[in-house]
Amino acid sequence: MDSDLGEGVEYDVFGAACPSRPVLEDVTGRWGSLALSALANGPLRFNELRRRVEGVSQKMLAQSLQALERDGLVNREVQSTFPLKVEYSLTPTGEVLAAKLLDLIGYLTGSMPGILDAQQTYDQAHAEA
Amino acid sequence: MDSDLGEGVEYDVFGAACPSRPVLEDVTGRWGSLALSALANGPLRFNELRRRVEGVSQKMLAQSLQALERDGLVNREVQSTFPLKVEYSLTPTGEVLAAKLLDLIGYLTGSMPGILDAQQTYDQAHAEA
Repeated sequence: MDSDLGEGVEYDVFGAACPSRPVLEDVTGRWGSLALSALANGPLRFNELRRRVEGVSQKMLAQSLQALERDGLVNREVQSTFPLKVEYSLTPTGEVLAAKLLDLIGYLTGSMPGILDAQQTYDQAHAEA
Repeated sequence: MDSDLGEGVEYDVFGAACPSRPVLEDVTGRWGSLALSALANGPLRFNELRRRVEGVSQKMLAQSLQALERDGLVNREVQSTFPLKVEYSLTPTGEVLAAKLLDLIGYLTGSMPGILDAQQTYDQAHAEA
């Protein structure tokens, strides 16, 4: 409302060229989604994040964080200590998105018994076919 | 509660080997997330879905739908008409997850003006550096 940029523009992730689509991929991508969710509990340093997001490589985590920082969802703060510490935290918009992701993840993990049953049924049906 | 499978098991997407992690990737992946969201408005046939999810290839859409069907989140119904029609719809669990995705997507698209500003600021700072 207070910006004269993009006024009246409608963003639609279903549009192949909409700039919202790559942002959705930053937020819901394999490592970006876990990094955002991990930061919902408070700021973390790079190596703390890497331990929390099991299985992520240094390169993939750095790329995911850089994309989220560029989108204005994650803050990267270099503390002037020795040795230097780099801390990551959520911006206000990042906090809301992380909460919505955690809501989805919580429902998904709570649904896992039914999902595993469905996978078993599907695999049996397709092994017989 | 009424199942003796997986009772007391805790699922955690941060664990590299947790079976919830690939399911999260099916749900939030590039094409799976858009296919699930598109089905929130009601059942669609394959080609309708393909038109809705702009830019997806036939192969990637088929793979994404198959993964969601295996997870018990999407129903695939072959109608005995001529020519055969194949219709996709959400299961009850798929409906809840699609609603949560749409909530996240709605907030994200509403935040796009600020996100684009952040991207511009980031790119300028990194071009100067």
